[in-house]
This record gives sequence, C-alpha cells and structure tokens, in this order.
Amino acid sequence: MIIVMEKNVNQELIEQVTIKLGERHFQVHLSQGVERTIIGAVGNRTQEDLDLFETLAGVERVVPIVQPFKLASREFKQETVIKVKGCQLGGGTLTVIAGPCAVEGMEKYLEVARLVKASGAAMLRGGAFKPRTSPYSFQGMELEGLKILAEASRQTGLPVVTEVMDPRHMEMVALYADILQVGARNMQNYFLLRELGKIGKPVMLKRGPAATIEEWIMAAEYIISSGNPEVIMCERGIRSFETYTRNTLDLSAVPIIKHLTHLPVVVDPSHGTGKWRLVEPMSLAAVGAGCDGLMIEVHQNPTEAWSDGPQSLTPDRFQALMNNLGQMTAALGKKLEGGDKANG
Amino acid sequence: MIIVMEKNVNQELIEQVTIKLGERHFQVHLSQGVERTIIGAVGNRTQEDLDLFETLAGVERVVPIVQPFKLASREFKQETVIKVKGCQLGGGTLTVIAGPCAVEGMEKYLEVARLVKASGAAMLRGGAFKPRTSPYSFQGMELEGLKILAEASRQTGLPVVTEVMDPRHMEMVALYADILQVGARNMQNYFLLRELGKIGKPVMLKRGPAATIEEWIMAAEYIISSGNPEVIMCERGIRSFETYTRNTLDLSAVPIIKHLTHLPVVVDPSHGTGKWRLVEPMSLAAVGAGCDGLMIEVHQNPTEAWSDGPQSLTPDRFQALMNNLGQMTAALGKKLEGGDKANG
Amino acid sequence: MIIVMEKNVNQELIEQVTIKLGERHFQVHLSQGVERTIIGAVGNRTQEDLDLFETLAGVERVVPIVQPFKLASREFKQETVIKVKGCQLGGGTLTVIAGPCAVEGMEKYLEVARLVKASGAAMLRGGAFKPRTSPYSFQGMELEGLKILAEASRQTGLPVVTEVMDPRHMEMVALYADILQVGARNMQNYFLLRELGKIGKPVMLKRGPAATIEEWIMAAEYIISSGNPEVIMCERGIRSFETYTRNTLDLSAVPIIKHLTHLPVVVDPSHGTGKWRLVEPMSLAAVGAGCDGLMIEVHQNPTEAWSDGPQSLTPDRFQALMNNLGQMTAALGKKLEGGDKANG
Amino acid sequence: MIIVMEKNVNQELIEQVTIKLGERHFQVHLSQGVERTIIGAVGNRTQEDLDLFETLAGVERVVPIVQPFKLASREFKQETVIKVKGCQLGGGTLTVIAGPCAVEGMEKYLEVARLVKASGAAMLRGGAFKPRTSPYSFQGMELEGLKILAEASRQTGLPVVTEVMDPRHMEMVALYADILQVGARNMQNYFLLRELGKIGKPVMLKRGPAATIEEWIMAAEYIISSGNPEVIMCERGIRSFETYTRNTLDLSAVPIIKHLTHLPVVVDPSHGTGKWRLVEPMSLAAVGAGCDGLMIEVHQNPTEAWSDGPQSLTPDRFQALMNNLGQMTAALGKKLEGGDKANG
Repeated sequence: MIIVMEKNVNQELIEQVTIKLGERHFQVHLSQGVERTIIGAVGNRTQEDLDLFETLAGVERVVPIVQPFKLASREFKQETVIKVKGCQLGGGTLTVIAGPCAVEGMEKYLEVARLVKASGAAMLRGGAFKPRTSPYSFQGMELEGLKILAEASRQTGLPVVTEVMDPRHMEMVALYADILQVGARNMQNYFLLRELGKIGKPVMLKRGPAATIEEWIMAAEYIISSGNPEVIMCERGIRSFETYTRNTLDLSAVPIIKHLTHLPVVVDPSHGTGKWRLVEPMSLAAVGAGCDGLMIEVHQNPTEAWSDGPQSLTPDRFQALMNNLGQMTAALGKKLEGGDKANG
Repeated sequence: MIIVMEKNVNQELIEQVTIKLGERHFQVHLSQGVERTIIGAVGNRTQEDLDLFETLAGVERVVPIVQPFKLASREFKQETVIKVKGCQLGGGTLTVIAGPCAVEGMEKYLEVARLVKASGAAMLRGGAFKPRTSPYSFQGMELEGLKILAEASRQTGLPVVTEVMDPRHMEMVALYADILQVGARNMQNYFLLRELGKIGKPVMLKRGPAATIEEWIMAAEYIISSGNPEVIMCERGIRSFETYTRNTLDLSAVPIIKHLTHLPVVVDPSHGTGKWRLVEPMSLAAVGAGCDGLMIEVHQNPTEAWSDGPQSLTPDRFQALMNNLGQMTAALGKKLEGGDKANG
Repeated sequence: MIIVMEKNVNQELIEQVTIKLGERHFQVHLSQGVERTIIGAVGNRTQEDLDLFETLAGVERVVPIVQPFKLASREFKQETVIKVKGCQLGGGTLTVIAGPCAVEGMEKYLEVARLVKASGAAMLRGGAFKPRTSPYSFQGMELEGLKILAEASRQTGLPVVTEVMDPRHMEMVALYADILQVGARNMQNYFLLRELGKIGKPVMLKRGPAATIEEWIMAAEYIISSGNPEVIMCERGIRSFETYTRNTLDLSAVPIIKHLTHLPVVVDPSHGTGKWRLVEPMSLAAVGAGCDGLMIEVHQNPTEAWSDGPQSLTPDRFQALMNNLGQMTAALGKKLEGGDKANG
Repeated sequence: MIIVMEKNVNQELIEQVTIKLGERHFQVHLSQGVERTIIGAVGNRTQEDLDLFETLAGVERVVPIVQPFKLASREFKQETVIKVKGCQLGGGTLTVIAGPCAVEGMEKYLEVARLVKASGAAMLRGGAFKPRTSPYSFQGMELEGLKILAEASRQTGLPVVTEVMDPRHMEMVALYADILQVGARNMQNYFLLRELGKIGKPVMLKRGPAATIEEWIMAAEYIISSGNPEVIMCERGIRSFETYTRNTLDLSAVPIIKHLTHLPVVVDPSHGTGKWRLVEPMSLAAVGAGCDGLMIEVHQNPTEAWSDGPQSLTPDRFQALMNNLGQMTAALGKKLEGGDKANG
C-alpha cells in the first residue's frame, strides 16, 4: 500500500508512520518530494492495515495497491472448469441453464424441463426458496420443490441449479441439487458463504445489485478459502438510476472476471433486464462478451407464472434463441455444451 | 393498479384483460381515449398481479398505485415509540447510541462505555459479529463479545444494540442484547427477518446500500407481519458513484420514513460517510432532518481499532459533538434522551 | 395521466381536480374504490400538467401514462437510415467508425485514417474540440483539426464524425464534418440541440452519463422537433458505483432504443469501458445486442496519444477485431457496411 | 503518481518506465518488493501523464496521488467571501436566496420578491432561461424575464441570481443579474465555464447530477483559472437509484467542499428533493451540515406555477421555515444574512 502524507508534514510524523510500518513487518520506501512525502509499504496488507494507517496523524490517505483476493485470482490458478453429471461449465463451451423462476408443481416442472432439454439446454434451473420483496408474495414450495427438481434431473439427466437462502437449509438443498446458487441479496451473507465452503458441490454466486466487481470476487474468496474451489460467478445486473429495465446488466463484468480470476462466468439476462423482449438480444450480447454460460427463465405460460412472468420466455421463443445461439457460438469458434443431447 | 393497453389495441384483448381482472376480484374501470385504453383495477393487488397482467397480450405496462406496505404504514398506526431499560427511542427526543464498531475486549469496552455515558449517550453499540468484505479480516468476538456487551449494560444501566447475522445465533444474541440490529448486507435476508418477527425485542433495521425506501419499508413489513411491531429504521448511506465518502448518506430518507410510516428513524453518520471528520456535521444535519436517534462510533484510540477506525470519534470529539447536539436539539424544541443520566 | 387521490379524500377535493382537468381539455374517468379514488385523464398532457395536478389539495401523486416523445417514437416512423458519402448507418448493416480520440496532426491522422480504412472502417472519427475534466489538459486543435479531418475524408472517401461543443462553432464544424456529434456532457445543452435541428447534416447524440433512456430520447426530440430528423443515438456508458471501468456500458439500451424509436444506435465501447482490453469483447457484445454501428478509438501508438490512450486499440488489434466482427455479423445474417471498400 | 508494475515484470520494462518518467521531469522512487515493483513519480502530473503511463508495457495501473485542482484548493487560499449589493455569501453567515423557479411576469415576480424579502431572504432567484427535459415545455421569458429580475432587484435592494445557459447570452445576462448561475446540466460545458471566467460577476456553479465532488471542483477550476475567482458551489442533488425523490441531496458534499476548497457552499433543497414537504427538513439539515446559503423555491400559488410547482413553498411556509432557520442558526452561533432588512 501507499501512504500519502499531508502537505509539508513534519519529520516526526513521518517517522511515527515508518516505525508502525516496521512493527507490522512492512518494508518501507520513502519518496520525499518538495511538498509531499509518499511512503511505499511492501508486505501483506489487510483491510485493518489500510484503516489503521489512515487514522495516524499526518496521513492524508492510504492507497491499496495489490488486489485483496488471492485464491480466486488468475495469478493463483489458470482456469476452473466445473463438471457435474457429464455437463461442463467453463473451459470454452457455452452452457445454457433454463427453467422457470419458481418451481410450481411436478407436472408443470417436468414438462418445461423436457421442453428446454429438447431445445438444447444443458442444465435446469428453478427456485424452491424464493426471496421476495413482499412478505405477502409466494415464497416457494421449499422441500417439495427440491424433490421436484431432483425428479426432473433424474428423468432428463440434466444437472439442476437452485438457490439456498439460509444456512439451516444447506444440507437439505445439497441433497437434491447439483449446483447451489447464492442469490444476489445474499452475496454478502458471510455465514452462508462459509457454510457453502464446506459442501462438496459447486456454488453459483450471483452478483449483488450494489456490489463492485472486487466485492463480488471477495465473496467468492470467502467460499474458496472455506474449502470449496468450485465457484461460478453469475452477473445478473446492478442497480443504476435507469428505471426502464429492472437492473442494468453489466456485461463488461464478463471479460473483467475472466481477466482477474480463474472462475467461469454465467450471465442471467432474465433478471438482468426484467423483460422477456430483451432476453434474446442480451443473451447474444453476453455470448459476444465471452460468457461461459447463460441462465434463462422459461415458462410454458408466463401469464400464469407465480413469479417473474414478465421476464420469462415461452418454450417457442427459447427454441428460437437456442437456434441463434448455435449460429453465434459456431461463428465464434465455440460449441454449445450438451447440444448433442437435445432431442436425443 | 392501472393497466395501460398498447396503442390502438383491439377490443378482444381489452376484454381478455377485464375478464381476468374479474376472476381475481378486481373492480374494473375502463377509460377509452381516442388512441389508447386505460384500465383501472381497484382491489388488493399483489406483486403477482402486477407481473401477471404485464404478460397479457395487448398490455403495454402495469402501474402500481397503492403502496405495497400495510402494517408499517402511517395509515395503520400513528407512531411507534420504543422503550427499553428506561430509555426511549422515538416520540420526540433525540437518542444517541454510541460505542466502538467492534467489541475488542472487556476492559476496553467497559472504559469506552463509561466515557460515552458520561458524555450523554443513551444507549451502547458494539459488534460481536462483524460482516467483513474480506474473509481474512477480524470477524468479531462472537459469544465472548456478547457477554462483554451485557456486562457493560449491567454496569452502566444503558441498553445495548448489537448485530445478529445468522438465524442460528438469534437466541444467543437475544439473550444478551436489548436491541437486535440487522446489518445493511442482510436487509433482504428474509429468513432472518422472519425469525426477528418472533422475538420479543426491538429490531434496528439498517437500510441496504442499494435498497429503495420502499424496499426498506417492505423489509420492516416482513418483521412486523411476522409478529414483532418494534422496528427501528436506520439510514446508513446508499451506494452512489461518489467515491470520496464510503457511502452517500441519504438524509431525505428521514422525513420520508416519518411521512410514510410510524417507525422511529436513526441515522448512522459513521458508516454513512466513513470519515470521522464528517461525523459531526452530518450528525447535526441528521438532527435538522428530524431523526429520532444517532448511532455514532467512538473508540478510545481509533488508530488501534480492529475495525473501521477512520470513521470513529475519540471520546473528546464525541463529547464536543454531544455539546453541539444539546444546543441544537434545544433550539429545535427537542430534548436529548437520557442526557440527565450523564455524569450521574 | 392518472391522478391518485389521498385515502378517504372528500368529494369536494375530487371535484376541484375534475374541474381543473376539464379546463385543460382532458376527458375525465373516475374510479372510486372503497378507500381511494383514482382519476384517469385522457388528453395531451405536458410536464406542466403533471406538476400542476401534483400540487392540488387531496392529490397523492400523478402517474404519467403515455411516453413524452412523439417525433422520435417508433409509432411515428418505422426506421431512419442515415446515408452520407455513399455510406449507410442503420437499415441492417454494421457500420464501424474508427480513428483516434483527438486529432493530433495531419501526418498522424492521415496515416491512421488509411489504416482503419484498410481494416474495413466505414467512417472516420476524431476530436477537434475536446471536452476535458481539467482546464490544464489539451483541449483540441480546433479549426486546424477540422481541416485535417476534411482532408482525411477527401483522401479516403470516408465520411467523418466529429464533436461540436458550442453553438458558436456550429457553422464552422458543419463546413468540414459529415456528421456532428453531441458529447455526453452536452446531451442536455438545449440551445446546442436546437441549433443542430437547423443544420442539414446528421447528428450523433451521445447519451449523458446520468441520463435515463427517456431523457436521452427527449434530447433527440429537441433536435428532430427543431427540424432535423437525422439523429443517431450513441450509447457510451452510464455512471454507476463500479469503479473498475470508466463507465458502465448499458447494452440493454440498444434493443430498447430500437424498440421505442426509429433511430439507429451506435455503441462506443472505448469510452464505455475506458480500457482497450475490454473493447473487443464489448464490441462483439454490442453487435449481439443489435447495434447498427460501433465507434472505436484507434491510435498508432496509444502510449503517445494526447488523450484517452488507455482505451485506444493499436491498428493491429483493430484489424483483429474487424476480422471477428466480420464473422459474427455473417453468423447473424448482417453485413459490414463499407467492408467492400477496405484494401480497395 | 504511483505506477504499479505487473507481478514479476522484467527489469527492462521497469527501466523503460523510469526513462520515460525522467523525460517528463519526474523524480523517480523505486520500491521493489519480492513480487512486485512500485514506482513513485514525484512532479506535476497531468491527466495525460496518467493516461500515458497506463499504456506502457508492464504497467498494471497508475494511481494519482495529489488532487488535480490548484486554484480552488484550500491550500491555495483560506476562504472566499462573496459580496454583492451589500449582501454577503460565505464568511460565517447563512444567506437565503428565494424566489420562483421561473419568472412568469412582472406583477407576480415583484409580489413574491417583496414577500420573500419580508420573510428575511437576502437574495432573489428566478429563471429567465429554463432548461427543460421536453422541447414542448415552457422555456423561459428570456430577455423579458431578465428585465423583470433587474426591476425586482432595484425595488427590493436585493441582489438577484439567474441561470445563463449559452455563451451567446452571457453579456445580456450579466447586464441584468448580480450572480450568474451555471445549471447542473451545464456543469461540464467548458466553453461556457471559460466565458464565465472572463466576466466580473460571481458565478454560482451547480453540481452536475452525475458529477463526483472532484469533477465539480475541477469545473470551478475552469472558471477560476480563466480569471474569475468568485465561484459559489451549489449542491442540488445527485442521481441515484432512489426514485421517491427527484434527486438524492448529498449533504456530505457541504463539509467536504469546505474542507477541500475555499469556496462558499449553497444547498438547493427544492431541486434536491423535488417535493415541498421535504424542503424544510432538508434546509435545516443543510444548515446542520454547515452550508453558507440556501436556495429555496417560493411561489404564491404553486398549483399555477409554470415550472416545478411541486417543489415550491408557499410564502406562508417560507415564513415558517425562516423562523426555524433563525432559531437554528442562533443555536449554532451563526446569523442570518440580511435578516435585519426583513420587514424594514
């Protein structure tokens, strides 16, 4: 880190800082300009160090230099490829995860699962626990929903992704699902993240709507440092002043995550825009940005969906999207993961 | 809610919508202009209704009219005043809550508790569980910290506020603390909110950094509708593009919450700005905006604090702030809660 | 517009509102529920109407229903295709505009112009007037820069886009440039917009960093309603809390503008991200989102650029990008505008 | 500035950077850690330097250290006090500027001017040129409005503040007004700012809705460096995701501007919130935050205002606010500027 001293600060205050740096095992490099002294401190700094030195007399500000994440970093590992039930996420293919926002019943779920598989989806999605802004909204089928997901996975052979919202449900969810999702509202629920570090299943970590890319990677660092290296990053839109869309889908996060970390990146254009009309163009855009996967909401009859109907595609529109994705991935020299199983 | 139909939509689609509204027990009011039809639907709408009608053919958009919260609303109740251990929050006084960001040990905590009481603080604060961006940072003293808080409360007679981060700790925290705080990162942790609805202690609900005022009130609605009417709202800054401050303290939230709800409002200028230099002016500003309480970080030696040192006041600066608050509340015809106990 | 009355408001206040609506030639439709009255007002409302009715006694809020733009709207016209010097923007092709951020001299500009043409650029870009945050930064070559742009256009046959910052320069800039650009900082400089309505050349209107999509379209409405229907919309990133990128490129704006208006949309990934490493993935993403054009900064030696070096591509990287764009547009059934002239 | 080199970069690239720094007259300080080299560069850096070094091979990023403004800085001057027509802004008093959003006619303006003076306003405000989102809205009375403002100033003896939107109107506006205002949409209209540097009247510079505090100060630097040291900063709200208020009034900007610069700070709670109900609490809050002045919209009949009625106070409510401001400034040891002239 770099410590910038106030203008024309006296020598004594500079010494106080350098002594304190020494105590904390930093190498010190002084740059004394005409008006201002800058102190370079080389060593393993923590957030506490940044805070501490910012409070010392004579210090104007402390500038962190090295990124705070380690295990998630590309310097630590080249690439993480997730493999589950014969399906791959990361490593150069495009993996499409599809299904309704919420699980609403066995019949309906099995039907849509078969439809999205036929169109080429490689994984299934569906919420058994639903975080809802209003306490008066449908909150999910819970255990019953998990069982439906597991049955759909068994019948289609596709792995299933679902959200876990509470550490107390962790074991139960892990029993039925193949990939556990952390919702955007829970991205900084650190007790949940640490628990996810202890299970043996991949975790899909959605970006919080107000989380910087660095904070998002730090949340992944929580999971990895607790013992689980299989983390998938999912961009689903950040909060901005724009009100036309539900969120502002930050596609630049895709190449940035791939540059800074070794983790695969999935994009969720359904939550990211909140409007089905935008799902297709933003899916193609996400593939252009280099994502490893897409997470798409599909519902037989969005008008009757119990949650997030306006952002769900019908099976027909999903089929059309898959056709376009096929052409586009081919043009970019990629292949659609699991596409060979469709209609198979 | 209002359903705006697309331009020049045919009569059949309008009828489909009105039939569906009837099925859901809405009264229907048609406004047919030259180009556009607008349908007023009077009844108890849910988020599902908004979503459902937005997906119907011919519908351009659905506009919610009535606010979605009920029990938190000022139309439901005039004013909530929290009373705990002889100290009041809400109801016309100014209640100052003070203490360090994190509990760091018995001696240190008792010392600062005595100091802030002597300066006129009415309640104590201190974190036993600390949500930290980095997994490598100090995460709190946990149970030991809770015991220190309870001891400080016993010795000073002041009630104590502390954060609970996980439903599994709820009972334990409630055993030692007088008011349970929901941190900003957990504002939409709905399982936690529902559990807090079942305890018999007041809850201080911090605003999420990306939460609209409506979403924040809906989080309070979760707690109240689960059985606990004693909710305190705490504004602690929202995320904006400005980087000079840690957050952007949205003081307009104070009169808005007081206008829309019956709940008391506390402002946290320490987290809201991230810089001790801004704590005093923003505290005075918050009182001008009409808050019921302030939450201030105080540490004997901010340079040695284990968390958030740069935003902590020294006891001397806290004393100076309390003097100014005393004069300002007097000018506004308010009194400082618990000020009579100071130095007592 | 819809006027929502306060809960249990008396009949007299409702009448006052309906009388005032009548005076302003609105058709009135009353919806009286048990607790609340909602008044639908059909007619040509202005912002003044929204404001006026919001101040009347008994009114809780006024909800605008119909979008405020007319001439820019897709309901008014199907599609605008810009044609200049044999080059087309809009209408199904992908038009790449390339060149340095600022014009820095005749030699250098002509060289880069030839290079980007050889790689397949269809138009040239370059700033003669540069809006800079600091008064101490290079502010552009002004008239001399314009002459260089015109000469490059003459030699390459490609049309040239450049920014106009002040109404007093309008005539001069229009003399040398083919398309006049309004910079993001000037998106709501209404006197400038009105002047641009009077010239006979197309205008490229960059989105302001804090402008909603509706405000951006309203800025286009200023130009069109002043007499110039040839407006090109340019998304260049909005301001969010994320600091890793210079701006947050809002690619969802592309399909939204195409849905709401008849205007062509260009994306500027150079300013939109601020980092050359992100220009290629975000260019491919923009094409996936359905843009009509891309605006790319290219500089022979970004290290020596007088402005915005870190976001400029070298000619080699630009060539590689054009190759990828060619494959991608082919896959999407589009063609690269002017690609046939390259190397010609 | 600090140049952070990539991990394990080779010695040659480090030398290239240090040679280039030498060419540009920077003193170089190398800090070579085990993994990473950091280069401190002491000297007068510009934005160009930051950009240039960021493009060099082996450089990870460049961190600016010293703030980019000079003449606006508190290090340059202690305090600026504006004096105009016997009225002071800055220097320890509270100066209230009041009047309607737009000038709507001689009679009406003179009446409201007399009313706000009687209540204790020290300056008048009113728009003759109105920046409006819609081209179909009232755009101001222009020259006629300016004449009305000048007449009101003559009759009341109060100085008058009004907006200038276009460099071509500068002379005309300066002829009639005492203080020229730069609107939020024009904060980065650099040609306008430079022209304002050449007139001999104070300038009130509103903060752009997406401007960081540093960018806002840089805009002031444009005016000052062009020759006009009399700049007043006006906080009027920034754009955030919150939709309940028109803008998010960032009161922390008040103590920050006073800490970083020598310029007086005014707060505009009318535009800052967009709702008259919030004007009083946010005015008191602004005074608590330490502002030098307030800018308040007052209209005899907000329901009939041609612009921004919902945020205007009636004269009665303005009188009540002035009473509260009087008590609050007294408690804080300040006085209301020009209060002695009221009713005089």
